[in-house]
Amino acid sequence: MNIEMIEAAALRLQGHARHTPLLSSPFLDEIAGRRVLVKPECLQLTGSFKFRGALSAVSALDPKVRARGVIAFSSGNHAQGVALAAQMHGVPAVIIMPADAPALKLANTAALGAEVVTYDRATEDRDEIGARLAAERGLTLIRPFDEPQVIAGQGTAGLEIARDAKALGIERAEVLVCCGGGGLSSGVALACAAHAPGLRVRTVEPEGFDDVKRSLAAGEIRRNPALTGNICDAIVTPQPGDLTFPILKELCGPGIAVSEHEALAAMAQAFLRLKIVAEPGGAVSLAAALYHADELEGDTVIALISGGNVDPEMFSRALATL
Amino acid sequence: MNIEMIEAAALRLQGHARHTPLLSSPFLDEIAGRRVLVKPECLQLTGSFKFRGALSAVSALDPKVRARGVIAFSSGNHAQGVALAAQMHGVPAVIIMPADAPALKLANTAALGAEVVTYDRATEDRDEIGARLAAERGLTLIRPFDEPQVIAGQGTAGLEIARDAKALGIERAEVLVCCGGGGLSSGVALACAAHAPGLRVRTVEPEGFDDVKRSLAAGEIRRNPALTGNICDAIVTPQPGDLTFPILKELCGPGIAVSEHEALAAMAQAFLRLKIVAEPGGAVSLAAALYHADELEGDTVIALISGGNVDPEMFSRALATL
Repeated sequence: MNIEMIEAAALRLQGHARHTPLLSSPFLDEIAGRRVLVKPECLQLTGSFKFRGALSAVSALDPKVRARGVIAFSSGNHAQGVALAAQMHGVPAVIIMPADAPALKLANTAALGAEVVTYDRATEDRDEIGARLAAERGLTLIRPFDEPQVIAGQGTAGLEIARDAKALGIERAEVLVCCGGGGLSSGVALACAAHAPGLRVRTVEPEGFDDVKRSLAAGEIRRNPALTGNICDAIVTPQPGDLTFPILKELCGPGIAVSEHEALAAMAQAFLRLKIVAEPGGAVSLAAALYHADELEGDTVIALISGGNVDPEMFSRALATL
Repeated sequence: MNIEMIEAAALRLQGHARHTPLLSSPFLDEIAGRRVLVKPECLQLTGSFKFRGALSAVSALDPKVRARGVIAFSSGNHAQGVALAAQMHGVPAVIIMPADAPALKLANTAALGAEVVTYDRATEDRDEIGARLAAERGLTLIRPFDEPQVIAGQGTAGLEIARDAKALGIERAEVLVCCGGGGLSSGVALACAAHAPGLRVRTVEPEGFDDVKRSLAAGEIRRNPALTGNICDAIVTPQPGDLTFPILKELCGPGIAVSEHEALAAMAQAFLRLKIVAEPGGAVSLAAALYHADELEGDTVIALISGGNVDPEMFSRALATL
């Protein structure tokens, strides 16, 4: 991984992915006790940053290989990202999802032109199904985070942060990034290190699922004890990636973990003060900015809201915290 | 009113107001049966386009006059726009609001540094209170729409639409604009006429409060029979302005009126597909794009969502339509 790969991805994404802005509100500054800037990747195509990495990976494939199609395992934001990236290139996408995934997610992915293949979590092995389909059709697997071209794509969000912060005259800031497997955090960290070295990435996770925070503290990879049971499900992964963790270890400050209530309260503040829709896992960065001020340094914080794919029931639960 | 005033306002606003993007979703295109682009002025500072006009008017004042301060009558988006514009210039703002305005609106306006003066709707005359304060302190009144520099400021949103549509290769489109007194609609119409003559503005209002639609049809100003009783309260005004109506009459197509249910359903689609928060009056434009396809022409429609200042209860009501 290097900055040239991120810059090359940015060229491939230009005119296809959105350059999301930096938003702000004096009301958020007051809660946080410092200047808060928010990069709303919920406004990215498909509603999350995942589209960046997916389009980077799909567009980097050899055209002959790409023409045979791509495959991904995901019931969430990565699925929609890969589906749209493949659709934009006019190539087939197969998305493997559990049969009990929410109907809306199945429908949304299919509506973006993907072939959705479901499996029974209790009786079937998704990897076996995926490997068979990939072999039969010559499909290329697009991994969700531990994949150089995916990290490069996520890093394009970091290039935008570096450029837009510079335009605002900001030389030093903590950059809070919602962290699952670390694809977004590592890409943003690489971009900032190259173009805005005064910006330091801090990973943010849900309490109890803070494998990256504990791994950074230990200096080696730690696993989560469980993979379910948190509303921030979009960013719960077993452990940091083999590619992403060394980057995080080199470039990031200590990890931060926030509670479910803090994530919901941050969603409510994003609604009230920025007029954007964040999902629980996408709001942990803003939650850290607003409610973990004592763990942060400096007078400016940039929180990257990673996605906004949340169902109305969960969103109403967040509004009820107001 | 002329295009030079709008371009001058754009220069004054540069670096202070946000250039809002054009958002889209294939799911919205499918509902509408044509390409739908959304300009989210809910993402503007203070959560609505009103900040543009307010900043334009305040920044156009002679510095000595401005230093004495400004005054506005508003319980809504105009109040916050004027408060922030005055704060940015470091001059006093007095906002006259009914004492029974929602507590959150009173608090938000005061938090932006304005002096909020309340009056009793039943027993006091707000114009008398405003005139007395203005005379005592030398304050300049900032009218909400029938004011050249306010129209010029709102027109800057039209300059952005013209430029961004051109960048997307769009030469012809209907531009749907939420319409109260007509400040935004007339400003956008002037900007489009000058810079993108293939873009035609259509005003959108709530059913039963469609004074502009009826005025356009009659060729002369018509009044609304009532001023309360609709969830789109932000865009309910007695009648089109004396300055705005001649512009609308010259440049706009027929007006459109949408139901409360359509406004709520459009808010829900903006949540689901664009991840933005629209208020009922701000969503009528998207409602027209999605649910009044037979009243529109061409293969592309641009809907300007004018604001996102909505309380959680009303937003939950919109989500319940999904």
